[in-house]
Amino acid sequence: MRFAEKTVGQLLEALSSAEPTPGGGTASAIAGAMGASLLVMVAGLAKSRNNTDEEKAALGDARDVLVPLTADLTRLADADSAAFTAVMAAYRLPKVSDEDKAARSRAIQDALRGATTVPLDTLRACADALAQAQAVAQHGNRSAASDAGVAIGLLQAAAAGADANVRINLESIKDEGFKSTTEAEAARLSSAAVADATTAMQALA
Amino acid sequence: MRFAEKTVGQLLEALSSAEPTPGGGTASAIAGAMGASLLVMVAGLAKSRNNTDEEKAALGDARDVLVPLTADLTRLADADSAAFTAVMAAYRLPKVSDEDKAARSRAIQDALRGATTVPLDTLRACADALAQAQAVAQHGNRSAASDAGVAIGLLQAAAAGADANVRINLESIKDEGFKSTTEAEAARLSSAAVADATTAMQALA
Repeated sequence: MRFAEKTVGQLLEALSSAEPTPGGGTASAIAGAMGASLLVMVAGLAKSRNNTDEEKAALGDARDVLVPLTADLTRLADADSAAFTAVMAAYRLPKVSDEDKAARSRAIQDALRGATTVPLDTLRACADALAQAQAVAQHGNRSAASDAGVAIGLLQAAAAGADANVRINLESIKDEGFKSTTEAEAARLSSAAVADATTAMQALA
Repeated sequence: MRFAEKTVGQLLEALSSAEPTPGGGTASAIAGAMGASLLVMVAGLAKSRNNTDEEKAALGDARDVLVPLTADLTRLADADSAAFTAVMAAYRLPKVSDEDKAARSRAIQDALRGATTVPLDTLRACADALAQAQAVAQHGNRSAASDAGVAIGLLQAAAAGADANVRINLESIKDEGFKSTTEAEAARLSSAAVADATTAMQALA
C-alpha cells in the first residue's frame, strides 16, 4: 500500500517497528511533503502581505511549482522504502559459486545506486521547494508567518535527512564516477537548501 | 476525525488547503511524532551498537519514555487544530453591547491561552524525546545511524515550530503573569532541545 493511503497512525506504527522499512528516508520525504503543503497553503491564501497584484502573481507562481513537488515527495516516500527493500533483497542473493558472487555483487551495486538516487531526488525536491520559500515568506499573509516558518524548518530537516541517506548509501558504492558526481550534486543541493532556508527565514522576521 | 485516522494523503491535502486548520502547529506535532517513532524503532532493534546488556538496558529505558511521547504528540496534533478553531470561534462572538464586548474579550483570552499551552506541550514532548536521543544515538545499532539522525532533525524542527506557535499566540495575551511564565518555560525547553539534539548528533558522528 502506498504511504499516501496509509493513515498517520499506521505510518507512525510502521516507523516505530523494527521492520527495516520505512525508515529515515521515507520519514524525510513525508516531512518534506508536509513542509511543501504548508507553503502551498500560505501561497494560496486569499490575502497576501500587502494585497497587491504583483504579490499575488509571485505567490501564484510559487504555488504552481510547489503543488507538483508535494506530489513528488509523497511518491518518493514510497520509492525510498522500495529502494531499501531492493538493497536487502540483493544482499540475500546466493553467494555459493563465483558466478553467484559476481551476480550478487552487481545486484547489490545496482540496488545501492537506486537507494542513493531516491534520497537525492528527495533532497532536490526539498531544495526546489525551499527555492520558492522566499517568495512565500516575503509576500505571504503575515497571519500565516508561523506556518511558513514551520514549513521552512520541516523542509530543511527533510533536506538534511535526505542528504544523510544519500551519503550513507554512497559509502558502499564502488563506481567512483557515480560516487563523485552524486556527492557533488548532494553537496550543491544541500548548500542551496540551507542558503534558501536562511534567506526565507529572514524574510519572515 | 482524528489525524491518526486520516490518511497521509488527506493530511497533506488538509495542510495545503486555505482552511485555517490544520496549520504549522499540527504539522510540528506530527513531525515530532515521526521523529519519536524513528527513535523508538532504533531503540527497539535486536542488535545494539556493541550488543552489551548495559546498552540494551539503556535503550529499553529510552524506548519506555519514547513510546508514550509518540502517542502524546499524535494527540497534540488534534489538540492544536482544536485550540486554533476555538480562537477563531471566540473572535466571531458578538460585539454589539459592552457586555458582549467584555464576554468576547474574555473568551478570546481563554482560547488564546489554550492555543499557547498546546504548542508548549508539543515543545515539551519534543524536548523530552530529544533528552532520550543521546542514549539512542550512542547505543543504537550503527546501521540505523541515519534513521537516528533523521529523527533528531525532525524533533528539532518540530520543537522550533512549536516554539514559534507559542510565541505568536503569546503576543495577543494580556495576562502578563501567564505571558512571562510561559515565555520562560518555552525558552528553557527550546534551549534544552537544541543542546540535547547537538549532543545526540555528536554521539552519531
